[in-house]
Amino acid sequence: MRACIFFDIDNTLFPTAEFAELARRNAIRAMIETGLDASEKEIYAELKKLIREKGSNYSNHFDILLRRMGVARPARYVAAAVAAYHNTKSSIQPYPEVPQTLMELKKRGYRLYVATNGDAVKQWDKLIRMGIHLLFEDVFVSGEMGEEKGASFFRRVLAHVKANPSECIMVGDRMDSDIIPAKKLGIYTVRIMQGPYSKQKGKADAKIRKFSELLGVARRL
Amino acid sequence: MRACIFFDIDNTLFPTAEFAELARRNAIRAMIETGLDASEKEIYAELKKLIREKGSNYSNHFDILLRRMGVARPARYVAAAVAAYHNTKSSIQPYPEVPQTLMELKKRGYRLYVATNGDAVKQWDKLIRMGIHLLFEDVFVSGEMGEEKGASFFRRVLAHVKANPSECIMVGDRMDSDIIPAKKLGIYTVRIMQGPYSKQKGKADAKIRKFSELLGVARRL
Repeated sequence: MRACIFFDIDNTLFPTAEFAELARRNAIRAMIETGLDASEKEIYAELKKLIREKGSNYSNHFDILLRRMGVARPARYVAAAVAAYHNTKSSIQPYPEVPQTLMELKKRGYRLYVATNGDAVKQWDKLIRMGIHLLFEDVFVSGEMGEEKGASFFRRVLAHVKANPSECIMVGDRMDSDIIPAKKLGIYTVRIMQGPYSKQKGKADAKIRKFSELLGVARRL
Repeated sequence: MRACIFFDIDNTLFPTAEFAELARRNAIRAMIETGLDASEKEIYAELKKLIREKGSNYSNHFDILLRRMGVARPARYVAAAVAAYHNTKSSIQPYPEVPQTLMELKKRGYRLYVATNGDAVKQWDKLIRMGIHLLFEDVFVSGEMGEEKGASFFRRVLAHVKANPSECIMVGDRMDSDIIPAKKLGIYTVRIMQGPYSKQKGKADAKIRKFSELLGVARRL
């Protein structure tokens, strides 16, 4: 049996892409409800453009969006958008099989960790909102480690948890940041085929379609 | 009958001081629940000190607080604190008589406005969370107007709403920012005796203890 399992967060533990889409839709609808004179389609197109330019983690999206749309006193719409966005965020749920599967793995004696890209506070926020943060021994986030998830990131994670690659499993949805760097170090890699990166080409040591299949994969190691 | 009524927000429409206290308590408890090794009393004292230094509107309180406490990887506690703070904030309620009283004033034909100090997005956020934002014709916030609530602020508000001072009523809890500057311009001032500023010395044109008493005061003008 392996000793440690590392988990990616986005599109592995919870449907990030679907959530982000819903949060944006809700924010746009809230701005219109508060009196913004524009169509949902029009605002959505502007927002998409902005996200392509600035990235999805940028925190002043709605401010800039409204300025670009020529809205003179945008505070009411920014507040409405942010409130709707936060309301959506505060009710995020993991993929339905995640909590039970994590509990079962803990029962079997695995030490569970998170190894993820992103801003540390935002990633912790997701774990806390999903109510699963206490299941992990530790959480490693690129934003706090000072480097993106690559071979060097995983090397440092291994040092932190005091384990050899051969004792560990990495579970994630992306070839580039989850599977390739972990595999390179000799960590057993499990790819979960869901979310927008499921089309990436490449092969992990094992492939699962449902989170609970991890139980069978882990048992065979 | 007067045509317009201006309302302050904090400690006038909703119990800001009580809410802020509760939000801080909840944030501190959430950090401890997430594993922070310190007592509620100790954290609270540090936070109070920080608020005295930086003001209550400063957005990086928890970051700084944890750094000062020597916490090495603070992201989990920042996330827990912010989530608890937002959860408290998203369920704010106005003083119980506020919505009905505002509705009644609208029915009588008054144009209602907000005239408040603070950051525009934060003040709009409060109105939206309380579900009363659509009752106001417009909302004037010092942060958006570029000056604190004083005589000049009120002069510009009067110009915006196209009314003479003698057609207006100002309702607020503070002598310094609500009553004195509005009275100076000849606006009829109503002071609501609640919250931490109720001890300030000075006299408004009328004094009420409950928000609904405004109905009687307005009727007599």
